[in-house]
Amino acid sequence: MITFVDLIDYFGTFAFAISGIRLASHKEFDVFGAFIVGMATAVGGGTVRDVMLHQSPFWMTQWSYFLVGFLALLLYVSFRHLFVKIDLTIFLFDTIGLGLFTVVGFQKTIDAGFQHWVAILMGMLTGAAGGVIRDVLLNEIPIIFRSEIYAMACFTGGIVFSVCLLLGLPNWVAQVLCGSVVIVIRLLAVRNHWQLPTLHKDD
Amino acid sequence: MITFVDLIDYFGTFAFAISGIRLASHKEFDVFGAFIVGMATAVGGGTVRDVMLHQSPFWMTQWSYFLVGFLALLLYVSFRHLFVKIDLTIFLFDTIGLGLFTVVGFQKTIDAGFQHWVAILMGMLTGAAGGVIRDVLLNEIPIIFRSEIYAMACFTGGIVFSVCLLLGLPNWVAQVLCGSVVIVIRLLAVRNHWQLPTLHKDD
Amino acid sequence: MITFVDLIDYFGTFAFAISGIRLASHKEFDVFGAFIVGMATAVGGGTVRDVMLHQSPFWMTQWSYFLVGFLALLLYVSFRHLFVKIDLTIFLFDTIGLGLFTVVGFQKTIDAGFQHWVAILMGMLTGAAGGVIRDVLLNEIPIIFRSEIYAMACFTGGIVFSVCLLLGLPNWVAQVLCGSVVIVIRLLAVRNHWQLPTLHKDD
Repeated sequence: MITFVDLIDYFGTFAFAISGIRLASHKEFDVFGAFIVGMATAVGGGTVRDVMLHQSPFWMTQWSYFLVGFLALLLYVSFRHLFVKIDLTIFLFDTIGLGLFTVVGFQKTIDAGFQHWVAILMGMLTGAAGGVIRDVLLNEIPIIFRSEIYAMACFTGGIVFSVCLLLGLPNWVAQVLCGSVVIVIRLLAVRNHWQLPTLHKDD
Repeated sequence: MITFVDLIDYFGTFAFAISGIRLASHKEFDVFGAFIVGMATAVGGGTVRDVMLHQSPFWMTQWSYFLVGFLALLLYVSFRHLFVKIDLTIFLFDTIGLGLFTVVGFQKTIDAGFQHWVAILMGMLTGAAGGVIRDVLLNEIPIIFRSEIYAMACFTGGIVFSVCLLLGLPNWVAQVLCGSVVIVIRLLAVRNHWQLPTLHKDD
Repeated sequence: MITFVDLIDYFGTFAFAISGIRLASHKEFDVFGAFIVGMATAVGGGTVRDVMLHQSPFWMTQWSYFLVGFLALLLYVSFRHLFVKIDLTIFLFDTIGLGLFTVVGFQKTIDAGFQHWVAILMGMLTGAAGGVIRDVLLNEIPIIFRSEIYAMACFTGGIVFSVCLLLGLPNWVAQVLCGSVVIVIRLLAVRNHWQLPTLHKDD
């Protein structure tokens, strides 16, 4: 049985994989290299989280993530020109995935017995570290360190999750609120070009 | 007692270390930096695998890998010009090492209780991740994402290993076939410049 | 109760974080990106060590490291111009931190039941890997592979620690001698521009 959350998870994985595959194609990677970068983008954040939490990486017990990644590659290679037209759709998937990944990262860390502040960090890592790994593999400066608010959205969502738990709200309310906050902040940030203050070279 | 497999393992480690040291010298690294890059190339793939399998990195219980790496550095520094002449020999070591590393990665993952498809991935990771780490440390785009078939050889070898096991063949037959397939594919790929299709920038 | 060693640890963390934040500002990172790079520089080495030793990363049970990193960001943003003037002070913190990190890395590895040579490597990793991670995130060739003696100071300190233990000296003597050796070598190396021999492109 595939639940609603599974579906969102797959859509998020798909969107993250597409972002890796697309950027890899800008550097003339072969299909295999593009697939690896796509998968690293999609499951990299959760893998780093799981290693730090002393668990097996989540994808090692479920091959469906690789199926989704492979589907992303197949569709991208076959209908590349279409992907430019559905840019907005992909962006929405990506944003919804970011919200879900943050929720999953927070929840898993709490379940492993760590404190809230660690869960906030791990939620952020789950959402944002994949993109950093992608950019390192592409030999680029990680874009999330310089562009519109991204990891900060996950951070804020984590704070909301924590506050909900402290207020004694049911877990599912905390999850929905956390995910929604991440998604709304990210959407507003991109629409309004919200940026954090930038540092400059001292002289 | 040093077995035949140990010998191959050392030759593979030596060849991988040389590839790291040589590329580091192209970037004017000091001897220590070159040694680190050489070791990262040689043991990096197996280290990532072991961390994911929840085991201590294999080299932490056996200092001989560092001895081989140090020997590689020493020989490279002393007889640098010779290494150009024995390029083919080094390439053969490297290819045989790739085959062996794939077999070891597959076997260790099966022994740890994971499914075949995870073992195929881990065999590939054992063979190919060291080169990716090397290129990241050298601030280059990982070459295996763009050049002749490399990780795909490990992937195919892993499939062969899996099929052999499913057919009920003895373990050693599966190992020999897997390793041979990796080596033959890699040799043919380099000789015939076999490449996977390349992706291009969409516009 | 904060001990003397805690204090040194915080000063070292502070100096490492400043080095990450400063280099991030040269690349026009936003405050959040600079914070992440600062933290990765400060706790990255210890994190890699703990993952290899099969332990939870040390900072996951103690939020004070993040407080120190945040303080570093705050002070850097507020008094950036002052930091140029206290360059020497920061360098001294950094050097003392390097010595302490090496001692901690060695001790923790011994306590985990590994052999001396692994402890020497882990001491070096604790001191030097954070800077490598920093440079990878900034898309630069890791500076420690090419500049004044750095990781070699940690390596020598580790040897001294090991020799002290073999001679049956008390643990605290080994720790003090190890840390001092790292600090003195590093200070002399920078003052006298000590460099290891550099490798060059073969042709």
